[in-house]
Amino acid sequence: MYSDNQRKLILKLNKKKFRLANKLFVAEGKKVVNELINSGWPFKMLFSTEENFHKDAHLIKNEDMKKISHFNSPSPVLGVFELPDEKKILSETTTIAVDGISDPGNLGTIIRLCDWFGLSELFCSHDTVDCFNPKVIQASAGSIVRINCHYVKDLVKSLVLLNKPIFGTSTNGDSIYSTKLLDKASYVFGSEAHGISESLLYQLNGEISIPQFRDTNIKPESLNVATATAIFLSELNRNKN
Amino acid sequence: MYSDNQRKLILKLNKKKFRLANKLFVAEGKKVVNELINSGWPFKMLFSTEENFHKDAHLIKNEDMKKISHFNSPSPVLGVFELPDEKKILSETTTIAVDGISDPGNLGTIIRLCDWFGLSELFCSHDTVDCFNPKVIQASAGSIVRINCHYVKDLVKSLVLLNKPIFGTSTNGDSIYSTKLLDKASYVFGSEAHGISESLLYQLNGEISIPQFRDTNIKPESLNVATATAIFLSELNRNKN
Repeated sequence: MYSDNQRKLILKLNKKKFRLANKLFVAEGKKVVNELINSGWPFKMLFSTEENFHKDAHLIKNEDMKKISHFNSPSPVLGVFELPDEKKILSETTTIAVDGISDPGNLGTIIRLCDWFGLSELFCSHDTVDCFNPKVIQASAGSIVRINCHYVKDLVKSLVLLNKPIFGTSTNGDSIYSTKLLDKASYVFGSEAHGISESLLYQLNGEISIPQFRDTNIKPESLNVATATAIFLSELNRNKN
Repeated sequence: MYSDNQRKLILKLNKKKFRLANKLFVAEGKKVVNELINSGWPFKMLFSTEENFHKDAHLIKNEDMKKISHFNSPSPVLGVFELPDEKKILSETTTIAVDGISDPGNLGTIIRLCDWFGLSELFCSHDTVDCFNPKVIQASAGSIVRINCHYVKDLVKSLVLLNKPIFGTSTNGDSIYSTKLLDKASYVFGSEAHGISESLLYQLNGEISIPQFRDTNIKPESLNVATATAIFLSELNRNKN
């Protein structure tokens, strides 16, 4: 079982400032927790509603899991892990950056996509939702283990420093299907509501778009940013396979 | 304001059986509600926390919106709409089907993707989450207006009746990048946890996969079903643009 102080701490870890102050974060779900443990991420506490999940896991009742979970439908496993130190920027050939993504599910999905398409890092503007938010961790489905998220103070500056062309995704750029997508480049995905920030727009070497295929008058406005990232990464990599 | 009975009804509409019994569903969010109204879907009640949203909207306080919203962070607008009658199957050239999708966000995103790629219908197995679930409606971002979801008793039978080849997406099929994807065909996406059901597997003319690009030992297990659908629909349509 957990103490009252442990319960309070776990619930507080929903907020970034408490994660930073305690150097801890919460992961929920068997698969994610297993991936973190197997990758050697040090944990502080493990709780499970199922026996034999892990020798160090405390067996707790479903009703007690509900009291510490950050989800309406809790998973059978919750772990509190040490927040890793910031990693060095590797500067891979292709850089993916997100600018002001606020939905945890979208960021987690984008992290999972970067992993699938063989990347190791993701640039995030300072106002992007924190990658150690419990909901991002869950949506990333364990991929947080392999993707370093670099939160940079000034995304424009950081991308310019990489010294390669910068492309933005928007709704009125050149079609990704007819544009030669450069391997050595940075690609920025803007926020769900506001797109790419203005200071970054000035630095772009081009804008690219996913065309839509509906020929009626009423048209869908835009794609979800995570599905747009999926389509873009597929298009960028399809010839490498 | 709303009456106590109205509040109870709205909250009950979270469940499919109450939606069917009352022939009503709930949509939340300005954009979605606007799209439904503009498409001429008859509404029963409209509530807004902002003035001048719509002449028939009842202005309510944020705290009262919280009491009827199906979300932890309510939108400024909630509408109760009439459930439409079942539509006829159009039998488009390309058919997309989902088999046992349980996550409302995933189904909503897939509906939005079908809309983007110019389709008008989606086949759903009977155990797929209901498309009029408030969370599906929100994730579909208004696309529910243009996509008819056909919930069929026997997905295998219904697809066989369409009299065209049936392909399933899996993790060990032929690469979508090197396979000729037929336009006139049905494509099935399986559930997040269990993939395509066994009875359907026997009827498939082929299995196709999105290859992954990570060359380390530890690999991501699978893509989220909505992002897989995004990549697949892009690949199927990229040459039509």
